[in-house]
Amino acid sequence: MLQVWLLVDLDSDTSVPVFQVCEWHSPEQLKKLLDLELRDRGEPESEILQRCRDAIRYSVKTSHPRFFNQLYAGMEPYSMVASFIAEAVKTNLYTYEVAPVFTLMEDAVLRKMIKVIGWEEGGDGIFNPGGSLSNIYAVNLARYRYCPDFKEVGMFSAPRLVILTSQECHYSISKGAALMGIGTKNVYTVPTDERCTGAVPFMVNATAGTTVLGAFDPIDEIADICEKHNLWLHVDVSSLFNQVVHLIPPVAQRFDSVAWNPHKMLMASLQCSAFLVRDKTSLLQRCHSARASYLFQQDKFYDVSYDTGDKSVQCSRKPDAFKFWLMWKALGSRELEQRVDRALAMARYLAEEIKKREGFRLVLEPEFANVCFWYLPPSLRNLPESPELWKKLHTVAPVVKQRMMKTGSMMTGYQPLGEKANFFRMVVISPQVSRQDLDFVLDEIHNLGKDL
Amino acid sequence: MLQVWLLVDLDSDTSVPVFQVCEWHSPEQLKKLLDLELRDRGEPESEILQRCRDAIRYSVKTSHPRFFNQLYAGMEPYSMVASFIAEAVKTNLYTYEVAPVFTLMEDAVLRKMIKVIGWEEGGDGIFNPGGSLSNIYAVNLARYRYCPDFKEVGMFSAPRLVILTSQECHYSISKGAALMGIGTKNVYTVPTDERCTGAVPFMVNATAGTTVLGAFDPIDEIADICEKHNLWLHVDVSSLFNQVVHLIPPVAQRFDSVAWNPHKMLMASLQCSAFLVRDKTSLLQRCHSARASYLFQQDKFYDVSYDTGDKSVQCSRKPDAFKFWLMWKALGSRELEQRVDRALAMARYLAEEIKKREGFRLVLEPEFANVCFWYLPPSLRNLPESPELWKKLHTVAPVVKQRMMKTGSMMTGYQPLGEKANFFRMVVISPQVSRQDLDFVLDEIHNLGKDL
Repeated sequence: MLQVWLLVDLDSDTSVPVFQVCEWHSPEQLKKLLDLELRDRGEPESEILQRCRDAIRYSVKTSHPRFFNQLYAGMEPYSMVASFIAEAVKTNLYTYEVAPVFTLMEDAVLRKMIKVIGWEEGGDGIFNPGGSLSNIYAVNLARYRYCPDFKEVGMFSAPRLVILTSQECHYSISKGAALMGIGTKNVYTVPTDERCTGAVPFMVNATAGTTVLGAFDPIDEIADICEKHNLWLHVDVSSLFNQVVHLIPPVAQRFDSVAWNPHKMLMASLQCSAFLVRDKTSLLQRCHSARASYLFQQDKFYDVSYDTGDKSVQCSRKPDAFKFWLMWKALGSRELEQRVDRALAMARYLAEEIKKREGFRLVLEPEFANVCFWYLPPSLRNLPESPELWKKLHTVAPVVKQRMMKTGSMMTGYQPLGEKANFFRMVVISPQVSRQDLDFVLDEIHNLGKDL
Repeated sequence: MLQVWLLVDLDSDTSVPVFQVCEWHSPEQLKKLLDLELRDRGEPESEILQRCRDAIRYSVKTSHPRFFNQLYAGMEPYSMVASFIAEAVKTNLYTYEVAPVFTLMEDAVLRKMIKVIGWEEGGDGIFNPGGSLSNIYAVNLARYRYCPDFKEVGMFSAPRLVILTSQECHYSISKGAALMGIGTKNVYTVPTDERCTGAVPFMVNATAGTTVLGAFDPIDEIADICEKHNLWLHVDVSSLFNQVVHLIPPVAQRFDSVAWNPHKMLMASLQCSAFLVRDKTSLLQRCHSARASYLFQQDKFYDVSYDTGDKSVQCSRKPDAFKFWLMWKALGSRELEQRVDRALAMARYLAEEIKKREGFRLVLEPEFANVCFWYLPPSLRNLPESPELWKKLHTVAPVVKQRMMKTGSMMTGYQPLGEKANFFRMVVISPQVSRQDLDFVLDEIHNLGKDL
């Protein structure tokens, strides 16, 4: 009934050297290359095939071992196969009747994740389209626990609620606060801003592995404060696996919720993000339910607790859990842990190399997979520490980035942070990365920037 | 560098008759068949391949021409190929630098959709993971236009805001109101509840093709009211294409925003949902932006207006637009329109057949692709119209549904609505459906329910 053969073979186009991470074109140039216009009449299959080849050719090769630009990299083939099957099977996760297999797989993988976190008495959870939604869910559940009436009556007569978070938390907490009627100004960063006059804190967002620096909040101390003041404790562990096992329990027993994205450190296909909650009183469902009569009939012939759709603010929801389930099944927990260890070992190698090399300087000692550093071209190396030096240094990374994209040899991020001048941010999360790749990265940054 | 061969061939498993829509197993039975447990050690490839086959086998065949259970059905092969490529290319739509091709394709397809709607001066838009998010975006933009300060300070000192909507709008409006701190009780349905004492309406949500009945709100009259009171007018056109062209303009000129899901009527792979806004002052970006320094650096070497990520409340965002772009390119606008026409002709055929057949009764004359009807087994046909008849009829659809799932011959939804007893809800959206399929559906419902 359903037959699909797919062949994606980048090597077949011999004009693209396989070592390029990207083939840069400006938006205006690329528009011309792609012929984007949609017309009244369709095109023959041979044209469409060429358009598919072009789409692949001009896309960034994010699975290339020299792609370090984001918090995702590499390719987990089992999860990709699972994503293809999920696309072909074409279903949504709202009811058991239309997604029996994926409903059970989501349940199984959530239970296993809850076990890994260390919630011995169980919990609940759901896969979301991205970690931002998971963080938004945490804010919503915390607010709902604080006062369930807000769901019905809104926040018009509520006291001013405040979220406490570490300064370097992901920006989704701000986006969520804006969306949810809490307001970005009511996201208080700790410790730089502790003024809470007249406001009611209801949750703390902690981060285990921040987006930019990969830093860890002091979660044990935060948990003490939350316990004392009855605050919801959400922990964004976006980039962890065995670290959860080894480092976090028994602290994890004190988390109310966790956002965990297997599409980052574990290389699952995009997207693969879970929101986990320790509560066992259907808080997730009670907080989000709308009981649509056309989906969630209560006179069905099976156990409707398997209809998970009302746990979500979405209606359509993709079976992303299947991707994680299949790769976990194929690899086993130990291999997943070892992969993370290998990636972290590579991050440490990179940090050590940076310390050894002239002209490279770490922004700070890495705690995790994020390695942040400056490159000083020879012209800056003998300048005294001064605002002028930092001002000049600030302009180096953008130029090197531009040159690396135009050669297509590698991709890494850069950014400023507070007072700090633009630095390179490498996130080493793929175990497919070798020491040679990392040596290349440092050599290449020097080659591209030594004349600056 | 990247080589993928995928073969999904359901026919190869000869134990599954190709005409079955599903192979029903209860959650407990299916758990045993699937061996869901995740262990420390992985499994060999041959086992994993069998697990993939099982995942496909026990999943519902939603592309089967006798699957009418949801607002999606059928399979658009171009869009599926695009989804495979998007999975393999593995990127997010936040910046041009990591998703140059998909960024431009999203832009092109949004522009074309805006043209189809009839916004002659242009507009803005974004693809979201599902129509619910699009509706939530509409509420958020309407609120932001009403008072931009809410983004920063929250709604703690705001007047009680109210959303006006038709009674049969999608439940995402309620879910959104709860999430956004507006409250489900401040979603006022019109005309059954017009009490607005002390409250400030800021938007109207209208529906062109409701979820259950496929009904159309009187959009022209609603637009008059919105204009008079300066209310944001959002229209959920989830299931339209050429209807937008033929029926809605010039009314569309008066819409502030539109939610449009090509994954419904146009059979694009799940998910494919666009939110479109007529505004041309970057309202979408201003409303949602958080200006994360690690993604949206302003000193990049290219035009950063192509970095669309800050228009979204998500961080990771899938290139769903590519699926719609590729199928539109391959088929052309005319073929897309004709497909919708063919599906609507089939829905009309079904309604006519229902009128002809003994024991079948339409709930109401269909306006669109949704055909809602009761089946009266012979035992009920000679009963007088009475509460007792309706009480008995209410139990028929759940039993027939159970039997159809256990035989696997077809799938259709059922539900009650207000005072109305459980009725069957068929949504005929796939042009791959034939008259024979629809005849079969009615025959089969009779066969499955005639003894009741």
